[in-house]
Amino acid sequence: MATSSDAAGLPRARRQTLTLADIAGIAGVSTATVSKVVNGRSEVAAETRAHVERVIHEHGYQPPRKTAKPAPLLELVFHEFAGVYPVEIMRGVERVAVEHHLAVTASQSHGRQNPGQGWLEDVLSRRPTGVIPVFSDLSADQATQLSIRGIPLVVLDPNGVPGDDVSSVGATNWLGGLSATRHLLNLGHRRIAAITGPQWALCSRARLDGYRAALDMAGVPVDPALIREGDFQTIDGVTHTVDLLNLPDPPTAIFALNDGMAVGVYHGASLTGRRVPDDLSVVGFDDFPIDEWLVPPLTTVRQPLEEMGAAAARMALELALTQGAPPNPKRLELPTELVVRASTAPPPQP
Amino acid sequence: MATSSDAAGLPRARRQTLTLADIAGIAGVSTATVSKVVNGRSEVAAETRAHVERVIHEHGYQPPRKTAKPAPLLELVFHEFAGVYPVEIMRGVERVAVEHHLAVTASQSHGRQNPGQGWLEDVLSRRPTGVIPVFSDLSADQATQLSIRGIPLVVLDPNGVPGDDVSSVGATNWLGGLSATRHLLNLGHRRIAAITGPQWALCSRARLDGYRAALDMAGVPVDPALIREGDFQTIDGVTHTVDLLNLPDPPTAIFALNDGMAVGVYHGASLTGRRVPDDLSVVGFDDFPIDEWLVPPLTTVRQPLEEMGAAAARMALELALTQGAPPNPKRLELPTELVVRASTAPPPQP
Repeated sequence: MATSSDAAGLPRARRQTLTLADIAGIAGVSTATVSKVVNGRSEVAAETRAHVERVIHEHGYQPPRKTAKPAPLLELVFHEFAGVYPVEIMRGVERVAVEHHLAVTASQSHGRQNPGQGWLEDVLSRRPTGVIPVFSDLSADQATQLSIRGIPLVVLDPNGVPGDDVSSVGATNWLGGLSATRHLLNLGHRRIAAITGPQWALCSRARLDGYRAALDMAGVPVDPALIREGDFQTIDGVTHTVDLLNLPDPPTAIFALNDGMAVGVYHGASLTGRRVPDDLSVVGFDDFPIDEWLVPPLTTVRQPLEEMGAAAARMALELALTQGAPPNPKRLELPTELVVRASTAPPPQP
Repeated sequence: MATSSDAAGLPRARRQTLTLADIAGIAGVSTATVSKVVNGRSEVAAETRAHVERVIHEHGYQPPRKTAKPAPLLELVFHEFAGVYPVEIMRGVERVAVEHHLAVTASQSHGRQNPGQGWLEDVLSRRPTGVIPVFSDLSADQATQLSIRGIPLVVLDPNGVPGDDVSSVGATNWLGGLSATRHLLNLGHRRIAAITGPQWALCSRARLDGYRAALDMAGVPVDPALIREGDFQTIDGVTHTVDLLNLPDPPTAIFALNDGMAVGVYHGASLTGRRVPDDLSVVGFDDFPIDEWLVPPLTTVRQPLEEMGAAAARMALELALTQGAPPNPKRLELPTELVVRASTAPPPQP
């Protein structure tokens, strides 16, 4: 078996032994400069910092434990503070964090795909035990900046395809999309619409592919006119539903790829005088606590958000404990489950 | 004007000058013990710690700034991680915190009225810039333990009546209850029910008193059979609504004292075959984003949760900046506002 080696051709065992001075020598800067970069101090020019970080990243330097003594914090960054999704995730993260006397911080990237550099600088200055972006990716540069400081990164509900060296936790979105659509097919529906999330959202793509696979397996052709792109906002459910129900050959069922949009489907159905489920069946995705109290109670695909939060927290802690050891990349997908309630029924008789 | 003095009869100006040794002398323990208590170290016996804290509290010792250098954290503790309420609050807190490079931590007291001692010990060891319990009070002892360490405390949406020396942020709950009920009276309703939160919740009591005042001002007698105590959970809205609608002389309108229970009222109405608003008018309290998409859209009383979060964060930061100065107690109540949508209409013709 060949000895594994890093980008610079040094044997992997060598990686742990590089000192600040070694890095300084390779980078052609002073040891003090490397130290400042590693400690997240701001007085290094951006260009120099990027250069030093690149060298550190390539040569696998790990800061000694005492330099990197972390603060008792797990840092969550959400896509945005909206709806009940962040609360469900936090419940799971907090459960694990409290056992380890860690506080959970929560911030948001305000609907952007990754949080800004200001966010990262504050995080680096706090030196948390771990960072968990939720439905919100870090840029490669941001991930590198955490990595060279030995701060574990676990991506929860990733949007981009995480790199091989990044741990992540998700749900079986493809299977969930398949189950939702099969349920509608089994009830006898053939005109089944899908209202998706944004194209950049990996979970939405997987759910939609599950929908396509179910139709294909049932021999039902996919009609592109029945697939509408939303932004996971309730209003997208409303507008697309009104549009879809005004088609010459409207759908008899709508699969909304999150619960927020499913609420919008109910609203859109009522605007066009359709009753759920008599005239229109609806399936959502999430299984938020409110779903069982909607009129009618929503059939949906449950993703175990609390368990996903707990799993991500445990993974971050494990990475923190094994700091200095070779990374142990993991991609965990927790199971989704169809929850049948009262919003789905056989299609109306023509 | 008389010179103000503290509990021990020392003039107030003296309060800032007591040293650790002074406190040790009064308490009859070593200076080292007092130092350990002030620094949140755990190796002091619980009884001794309580005694020293009592002495410190009575004599007004303030730790010098350098001892109390806070971590860049604002710590939120919620009653529980449930629904969208915590997210709305966090959005406001985070907006202010980010400007000051502070992280926001979030924890929960799991539905208990105040968080446990384990929570407090973790908080003390982190030395945050401020602590904000949200709809979750601290015990007097917990408040004292923060106070003697110079950690600012601001109670958001308080449940107990906060002490005179505790800053707090709330909403004009009484006026909100009054507006909701007046709106129903103006539509012609006379049989108006109220589903409340738990009795220990100050906000619920204020809303209910506003309801009573509106009825009284309109000359409509308060019927105790129409007032039902819930726990702010959706299921309470369901069960009480079914009960109320089965009365011999049922209400024509229900005021649910939070939006979660209003969703339950919709559900309960549908279980008994009543239509909203044709057969039953419904008013909620909160104005969560989902309200406008419910079928029909919910008439409710808006409380500005995001602004309340921002105000509490600003207040905590102000207290942190003026540390050592005499406390500046504040009780801020932000305005509520009736938002009329489609769930309210004149009562059905008899």
